[in-house]
Amino acid sequence: MFTPLVQELINSLRCLAGVGQKSAQRMAFQLLQKDRDAGFALAETLRTALTKVGHCQRCQTFSEFPLCSICTNPSRDPSQLCIVEIPTDVFALEQTRSYNGLYFVLMGHLSPIDGIGPDEIHIAELKQRLETENITEIILATGATVEGEATAHYIASLVQNTDTRCSRLAHGIPLDGELGYLDTGTLSRAITARTTLV
Amino acid sequence: MFTPLVQELINSLRCLAGVGQKSAQRMAFQLLQKDRDAGFALAETLRTALTKVGHCQRCQTFSEFPLCSICTNPSRDPSQLCIVEIPTDVFALEQTRSYNGLYFVLMGHLSPIDGIGPDEIHIAELKQRLETENITEIILATGATVEGEATAHYIASLVQNTDTRCSRLAHGIPLDGELGYLDTGTLSRAITARTTLV
Repeated sequence: MFTPLVQELINSLRCLAGVGQKSAQRMAFQLLQKDRDAGFALAETLRTALTKVGHCQRCQTFSEFPLCSICTNPSRDPSQLCIVEIPTDVFALEQTRSYNGLYFVLMGHLSPIDGIGPDEIHIAELKQRLETENITEIILATGATVEGEATAHYIASLVQNTDTRCSRLAHGIPLDGELGYLDTGTLSRAITARTTLV
Repeated sequence: MFTPLVQELINSLRCLAGVGQKSAQRMAFQLLQKDRDAGFALAETLRTALTKVGHCQRCQTFSEFPLCSICTNPSRDPSQLCIVEIPTDVFALEQTRSYNGLYFVLMGHLSPIDGIGPDEIHIAELKQRLETENITEIILATGATVEGEATAHYIASLVQNTDTRCSRLAHGIPLDGELGYLDTGTLSRAITARTTLV
């Protein structure tokens, strides 16, 4: 129905996260019809970024430099280390402007069923940082999923008998969350972890 | 927050139709983390397609060849010409398997307010086809919008005093459509254009 090259473009666009047949068609036609320059720029950036972007040697996030912009920022507090699963988690936390320490990006979570053990999530590098750097607190910000919880517990066990404080992001009712729409698990955590006001 | 090259990749991905900040981030990280090969392939296909794909000389749809695969298919009926706005409309109609004629893609619709007149939607080429080819019916399949209707009426006026039959896709209640959820305009058209059963 489409000529081979147009079909190939549609198929290629489907490699992008969350893009199905219809979105890919829409993207292809919009690029062909209105936005060829932006398309060429995208092709060029894709090639450059995929060639040059590797991982920060210190926190494992994506970076084209040996160290990322947070790890090299002298105004960040090096005594706090926040441990997250993926680079977008860093972005989400940075947007809160509530944290000024450093990060460690696991690039995944423990999931034995998928063959992802401590080696795959850079636990050796994390251990080394905990031993060589003067870190007084690690903040576990892995996801509130089974794997995220397991990963958090595993990492907590690493610092169990040391002076390093270990905390976990609070679970509870999200702001603007109506009790009636919340799942039982979250509500149960909110009751158990209730905070004293007076 | 992100290194410049990662940020540039995210920004570039936003040129795609329907992609906002969060989707672009997700796409960028998925490509960097899991799918570098697919990303390189996409960059290559983008460059090739945007360089080579032009328009079919006969029906104006996207094609890297002088004529598209439908225009060159000898089993299509050349006496019927279906007039649509954009190439995806051809795809949608082809999927119905209810039509075996040829197409003419306007690549837009009349919209004087945006400076889109008959010249911009290839009316001269359409006229030439109507004069030189043996077309017995044109089927107006432009959108059911104000601009689509105006375009349909304009094209209908071109064949008014000729032997060429001119039809328009039927408007009415979509299959599985519940009357209570339909807009008044559609329902009004469905009553006016009611079909006799017995």
